[in-house]
Amino acid sequence: MNLANTRVEHDLIGDLDVPADAYYGAHTARAVDNFPISGVTLASYPGFIAALAAVKQAAATANRDLSLLDRTEGDAIIAACEQIRGGAFGDQFVVDMIQGGAGTSTNMNANEVIANVALEILGKPKGDYGTCHPLDHVNKGQSTNDVYPTAVKLALDGYVVELRRAVASLREAFAAKAVEFADVLKIGRTQLQDAVPMTLGQEFATYAVTLAEDETRLEEARILLHELNLGGTAIGTALNAHPEYQQLALANLRAITGIDSLVGASDLIEATQDVGVFVQLSGVLKRVAVKLSKICSDLRLLSSGPRAGLNEIHLPARQAGSSIMPGKVNPVIPEVVNQIAFEVIGNDVTVTLAAEGGQLQLNAFEPIIAKSLFDGMAHLAAGCATLQTRCVEGITANTEHLAAVVAKSIGLVTALNPAIGYASATAIAQEALSNGRNIAELVLERNLLSQSQIDALLSPSHLTGRARNSVPEH
Amino acid sequence: MNLANTRVEHDLIGDLDVPADAYYGAHTARAVDNFPISGVTLASYPGFIAALAAVKQAAATANRDLSLLDRTEGDAIIAACEQIRGGAFGDQFVVDMIQGGAGTSTNMNANEVIANVALEILGKPKGDYGTCHPLDHVNKGQSTNDVYPTAVKLALDGYVVELRRAVASLREAFAAKAVEFADVLKIGRTQLQDAVPMTLGQEFATYAVTLAEDETRLEEARILLHELNLGGTAIGTALNAHPEYQQLALANLRAITGIDSLVGASDLIEATQDVGVFVQLSGVLKRVAVKLSKICSDLRLLSSGPRAGLNEIHLPARQAGSSIMPGKVNPVIPEVVNQIAFEVIGNDVTVTLAAEGGQLQLNAFEPIIAKSLFDGMAHLAAGCATLQTRCVEGITANTEHLAAVVAKSIGLVTALNPAIGYASATAIAQEALSNGRNIAELVLERNLLSQSQIDALLSPSHLTGRARNSVPEH
Amino acid sequence: MNLANTRVEHDLIGDLDVPADAYYGAHTARAVDNFPISGVTLASYPGFIAALAAVKQAAATANRDLSLLDRTEGDAIIAACEQIRGGAFGDQFVVDMIQGGAGTSTNMNANEVIANVALEILGKPKGDYGTCHPLDHVNKGQSTNDVYPTAVKLALDGYVVELRRAVASLREAFAAKAVEFADVLKIGRTQLQDAVPMTLGQEFATYAVTLAEDETRLEEARILLHELNLGGTAIGTALNAHPEYQQLALANLRAITGIDSLVGASDLIEATQDVGVFVQLSGVLKRVAVKLSKICSDLRLLSSGPRAGLNEIHLPARQAGSSIMPGKVNPVIPEVVNQIAFEVIGNDVTVTLAAEGGQLQLNAFEPIIAKSLFDGMAHLAAGCATLQTRCVEGITANTEHLAAVVAKSIGLVTALNPAIGYASATAIAQEALSNGRNIAELVLERNLLSQSQIDALLSPSHLTGRARNSVPEH
Amino acid sequence: MNLANTRVEHDLIGDLDVPADAYYGAHTARAVDNFPISGVTLASYPGFIAALAAVKQAAATANRDLSLLDRTEGDAIIAACEQIRGGAFGDQFVVDMIQGGAGTSTNMNANEVIANVALEILGKPKGDYGTCHPLDHVNKGQSTNDVYPTAVKLALDGYVVELRRAVASLREAFAAKAVEFADVLKIGRTQLQDAVPMTLGQEFATYAVTLAEDETRLEEARILLHELNLGGTAIGTALNAHPEYQQLALANLRAITGIDSLVGASDLIEATQDVGVFVQLSGVLKRVAVKLSKICSDLRLLSSGPRAGLNEIHLPARQAGSSIMPGKVNPVIPEVVNQIAFEVIGNDVTVTLAAEGGQLQLNAFEPIIAKSLFDGMAHLAAGCATLQTRCVEGITANTEHLAAVVAKSIGLVTALNPAIGYASATAIAQEALSNGRNIAELVLERNLLSQSQIDALLSPSHLTGRARNSVPEH
Repeated sequence: MNLANTRVEHDLIGDLDVPADAYYGAHTARAVDNFPISGVTLASYPGFIAALAAVKQAAATANRDLSLLDRTEGDAIIAACEQIRGGAFGDQFVVDMIQGGAGTSTNMNANEVIANVALEILGKPKGDYGTCHPLDHVNKGQSTNDVYPTAVKLALDGYVVELRRAVASLREAFAAKAVEFADVLKIGRTQLQDAVPMTLGQEFATYAVTLAEDETRLEEARILLHELNLGGTAIGTALNAHPEYQQLALANLRAITGIDSLVGASDLIEATQDVGVFVQLSGVLKRVAVKLSKICSDLRLLSSGPRAGLNEIHLPARQAGSSIMPGKVNPVIPEVVNQIAFEVIGNDVTVTLAAEGGQLQLNAFEPIIAKSLFDGMAHLAAGCATLQTRCVEGITANTEHLAAVVAKSIGLVTALNPAIGYASATAIAQEALSNGRNIAELVLERNLLSQSQIDALLSPSHLTGRARNSVPEH
Repeated sequence: MNLANTRVEHDLIGDLDVPADAYYGAHTARAVDNFPISGVTLASYPGFIAALAAVKQAAATANRDLSLLDRTEGDAIIAACEQIRGGAFGDQFVVDMIQGGAGTSTNMNANEVIANVALEILGKPKGDYGTCHPLDHVNKGQSTNDVYPTAVKLALDGYVVELRRAVASLREAFAAKAVEFADVLKIGRTQLQDAVPMTLGQEFATYAVTLAEDETRLEEARILLHELNLGGTAIGTALNAHPEYQQLALANLRAITGIDSLVGASDLIEATQDVGVFVQLSGVLKRVAVKLSKICSDLRLLSSGPRAGLNEIHLPARQAGSSIMPGKVNPVIPEVVNQIAFEVIGNDVTVTLAAEGGQLQLNAFEPIIAKSLFDGMAHLAAGCATLQTRCVEGITANTEHLAAVVAKSIGLVTALNPAIGYASATAIAQEALSNGRNIAELVLERNLLSQSQIDALLSPSHLTGRARNSVPEH
Repeated sequence: MNLANTRVEHDLIGDLDVPADAYYGAHTARAVDNFPISGVTLASYPGFIAALAAVKQAAATANRDLSLLDRTEGDAIIAACEQIRGGAFGDQFVVDMIQGGAGTSTNMNANEVIANVALEILGKPKGDYGTCHPLDHVNKGQSTNDVYPTAVKLALDGYVVELRRAVASLREAFAAKAVEFADVLKIGRTQLQDAVPMTLGQEFATYAVTLAEDETRLEEARILLHELNLGGTAIGTALNAHPEYQQLALANLRAITGIDSLVGASDLIEATQDVGVFVQLSGVLKRVAVKLSKICSDLRLLSSGPRAGLNEIHLPARQAGSSIMPGKVNPVIPEVVNQIAFEVIGNDVTVTLAAEGGQLQLNAFEPIIAKSLFDGMAHLAAGCATLQTRCVEGITANTEHLAAVVAKSIGLVTALNPAIGYASATAIAQEALSNGRNIAELVLERNLLSQSQIDALLSPSHLTGRARNSVPEH
Repeated sequence: MNLANTRVEHDLIGDLDVPADAYYGAHTARAVDNFPISGVTLASYPGFIAALAAVKQAAATANRDLSLLDRTEGDAIIAACEQIRGGAFGDQFVVDMIQGGAGTSTNMNANEVIANVALEILGKPKGDYGTCHPLDHVNKGQSTNDVYPTAVKLALDGYVVELRRAVASLREAFAAKAVEFADVLKIGRTQLQDAVPMTLGQEFATYAVTLAEDETRLEEARILLHELNLGGTAIGTALNAHPEYQQLALANLRAITGIDSLVGASDLIEATQDVGVFVQLSGVLKRVAVKLSKICSDLRLLSSGPRAGLNEIHLPARQAGSSIMPGKVNPVIPEVVNQIAFEVIGNDVTVTLAAEGGQLQLNAFEPIIAKSLFDGMAHLAAGCATLQTRCVEGITANTEHLAAVVAKSIGLVTALNPAIGYASATAIAQEALSNGRNIAELVLERNLLSQSQIDALLSPSHLTGRARNSVPEH
């Protein structure tokens, strides 16, 4: 290697050349060599890098204020963290997201980049660790075991906020369609068999309601993310940490992130080894995925056709569906969301295995947990957005077809039960099924009810229960 | 078939002989024929049967009070439900738990048994459905689609209460051991490598803390279980239900079950098709399973030996471990809990698939969801109980061995860092590693610290952070 | 306890009263106390009990022939095993299927029952272990670690044979329907959108073909099941086993079971710890489950209706579908098979976790693996049988409706492409879509093709590719 | 947009500007807009791009030779495919790997890039589709439904070959260690409790054996990958395909790829909708993952320490393990492989869900299946390589410690059983356990055996069964 283009760093393993212009150092370089797994590096997760920098900044500020760090040096570290939080130096986070070592390499990558950026701020050359050391200074009072999960939780919190926002927007789109389709009568189905009438608006409203519930679940999951083990150092006993460090660092972190509810865990040893918060969050994500997948399967089913399907709604055409079949358009947007859901459900198993594999005072498998959750939430949020803007907002109802199906539906007879009796209703249902005629026609023909009686019983407001909705609770 | 021993019933499919002394009827008999799957019937789930009877009783009371049921008949149905809730007629619930039809067969089994018990109370022969009909009377104002999930939720609530109680007892056993082992110093480990000291009491305390958190998660999950779609009838539009029925039935159900927080869902159509509550609960169960599995793996690891293992604790011997190796005793109790955890984690995938497969206005796959959750919770509760009484309560510490390992541990040097400096600490660590000598010895030999200084720094209270715990938050 | 009704047994833990008439002994009784988990005991798995007895018989025969067992005693043990294999004493297998101890309790249960049955044959009282001892005699030359997995594999082999038979019968039912529906033209669908025509016979043939493939997969999985670690004793080193024991025992086992392909593993240490065979088998079962689930979802979709669905086929009515909706019949049989599939897919995760958790020379979690696989295969086989006899064999085609849909289908235009050109085809497709008219009509009206040309291009044999199937490979 | 930098393309949806220098066209551009999901594009999977080009080349060659394509144009298409197979134009494959549409967008991306490269070869401007059209020419006789799964299978085949090679190299590394450690005696363990002796060589040999078995499983899985539905067009009926096309295209594909065993499926309709091959392959990958994870957990356990662990082997130090604990080195390489295994196991669930969700004549979810399998295999192969070169090859045995543990092990007494009797053995075991003395010492002290007898019985060759291995089968 050309010496002009490298500098030598030293660690427990020995000397190592690193590129002269790299802000990262030996620990990072070894990790890059050790983990050539996915090719997906920290650099692809700017929210995570910002979270790491926030934690480092909170720690450095505490150490500076406790006079454990020289002020000049402390200020340089803090300034470096702020630059990184602002998006600078992202390309220096080069370690693979799938890595051994319980996040040590990620922590080291952050420590090294921050140290070298701080050195640059101080007008010193890269690698001048006597002035500002990745471990002795940047990592002071910290261990990967408290810093890494803290940063992961902060990053996850950001993802949850974004996902909840995307879910909310999608929910609003469904709610708007519920209003638009409020008077479109259709046949409801149970077990794919014709059941009783409802409105298409009611059907779309359920999608809004069910997503709203998950916004609440996501908010609940955030609360658990805000309980941190920062300050526990190696195994949660806080060995070698200054007695006031934990509370100062947490206060700084609240100030930096603007998240007031960040608190220290009551038992730092438990908090250091436990990954229950990730399992819980993953379970909630799986729930979101399950709901989105069910909704998208419904949309695909309701829009099946155009001639041999249910043909109840029309999804906006977004791309040609087939080269061999002219004019075919496929429900590609719901299909991609189904697939994202399958990925998230699979990721939940990955998270579960990683959590179950924890041993004694630490779970060494947090990196794959973090990656699985980050990816799952990003993909879910993207899926919600494309579903909203490229599908739901453009859905139209095939109103005439729906009305025709309702008219010939046998399920209507259920609504006449109270008026004509179960026995007559059954006889009429059977006749309708055998000769293909309408329920209303047959009732009229037999003089069981007048046209106005039929109209009242089969009015949308009666059939769909909206007449009943005004009854107050007691 | 001997006519003396059967009676003829009739349904939509036609006539069917059922045993003359059976309280169930034709629908049930057909379901038994249709679903010869697992051999595990409703009868194995008395809590579920009681929940079904409670729902039926609440409905019958509402119908009676609304004069939709004749008082005599209504009272007989209510009395029948009370007998069943008290444990009678359990053997008449003969349908396989794995069944098609979205729970219809379970609902029909309950309707038929209740009708025939009511007929018996009224002094009428079995099958005299003109007097009391499984559908027209017992099932009045109901649909499987609202009754079945309501009963499943009530039954699940009972299982959650029992599981939480079992977790709490186990948690107390760990907490008691935490007190007992409060002064037993040991080496903490991260990534299975020696880290820094802690006490065995701290280690056991984490198990208590982590389980306590899951008691809270279980309580949270109960809240969602208390939101019911009772009164929604077929698809949630409440078609053909009396306007006051829902609120009366819910009030009755609160009175019967003693669960004051039971409420109707705000959107009955959504509540009828959505199974998110089961996905959420399953996710929480998986979390409990993951934690128990991790704890049991730790117990097996810490008790490994007796000569070639960690040998830190001793689990009580519960049975001989080997025919070929005299004196071998295995950690059979933690092992069974690990396996229950694996089962529950697998069940979560089953629940997820069933939830994801729901279509339009109903999820037809609730029976396998119910079975998976019932079994998982029962097994988890049993696992907690056997772990508590047959393992944790009898655990003893191998105190001498632990002390000897701490004494020779290199990890101790971390605690001397602040006093002797990182460079000296590293040199001593390396010497200790190469020649097998003690950290304390070497420090004393080099006159780096006095014996009393060493004693202070290596005292359990300093090493384990308990000295620091008195520092208040600020 | 009344001494008259108990006898005292002794083991490593101490003395224990067991019921006087029990054929099992102290080890079993302790296991019953230790594992009160699922209530599902070995007694529910007669095929597994028979497999255990077969292994014990093979071992006893080898030991007798090597003069390691006294002939009288050996013969008694062999006779006891034969009785058990014939179905006797099943109720004496009382240990819970979910158990710790890597199967030791199952092995002990078998050893004790066999010893006491042998004692009865010899005219001795139960518990007279000086004459015939569960460990020293029945278990001679064996360890749970080789006996248990051997018995599990033999039992699994029986389940695979039964499942394959059930799959084959179901496949034949689909194949018969394929012939029956060979001339029923319909519209094929991709992504739920109308694609090009095919026959209903072709659709049903795919189900036969896809299941036939899985019969082959199941047969392949059997080969792996036939590789046994019998003779490896504790960890596969065969410590304390007679040098000729393994080969004799295997030869006996082949003779007893009639399975000629049973062989010893080439590396007994690996074979003792590895559970890859179970993971592989579970993967194949999951594949069967996925296929059955897809088929059942198709059947439910194709039979959706009667008025608002695809309504292409009619499933035989097996039970009333609804109390509130007269005449509603649901696809309950496919639904139950979907749920079995979900269970099997969940079980696969359970098996995976148990397999992954193995440590060093043994996997302690084989009991949950065994239970998961046994149950999954039994349920799948039952599901195939009910699907065949209660659903598939009675399916009818709604031929007229199918023909009408084909006639108005726009997908037909694809077949005219080569004759009228892509541009004309597209124009006609667009006109048909906008005004609801037939493709054929429009082509005729525009004089693009004659009626006979249209008939030829739209003939079933041309549309469905059967005309092309006669082209030989070259 | 600056007109100078774009060209206008047209499709079913309408006009669209695409970058003037893009080789892809409108269909691709729409897909990029529709699927902004993961940011991971086809470009990251060069093996898949090459497979797509190989299929397109095979088809074009068949079409040219059947005179369905003009020779000049056909030759240009073929030349374009060859360039792409050689690695050119990879950056033009810009569609997200997670996409709706059953692979249509991937197929379209390939069609468009090939068409424009062919146009360049012909000296024509990009977008001159009158000369060479993405659909009418490049995609002639094809449908996404046959082309896409064919390309996926070819790409998977390449991944399997690479993974098998990586597994084989790792297996050889373990086998070399097995030879190196052939005489290192140690205590074997079952259920983490000391069992009987074995050699460290035997332990490492099991890892080689178990991996060798999975090389066979991977080869078996390849066979299924070689059965293709190419030529089935839209749904497998081969509508509009030339009768000789399928066989010609397959022959070309064999020639291009060098894989002689590529064949057409016997039932193209089944082959078009069935994804069982992916489920099977995923099951095998999961098995590989389970085995690797178990091995890595063993390595971490055996190397635990240095003072408070098993400390049997030493893994080469690859990076510093801790900033706070001087000298700590962690098993980071096995840890990363555990995590890859967890990912692959989760991916298997994703694949399963996607497979289960297939409907009627097509599975729309193949893109997520492809991505999950591609990633899983790439990561597994990378994990095997880093495990081999950065861990296994550098493992050393802590021979002295192992010998000391064997010497004091109580498990040794099992080997003396036949010589001194079970009763004496048990007594000696109990004494050794209570006073911490050696088995051998106690036996000698009591004059039960001479030193030479003890030496013989406790010799490595006797203890580890190697003395017995020479006994031939009979």
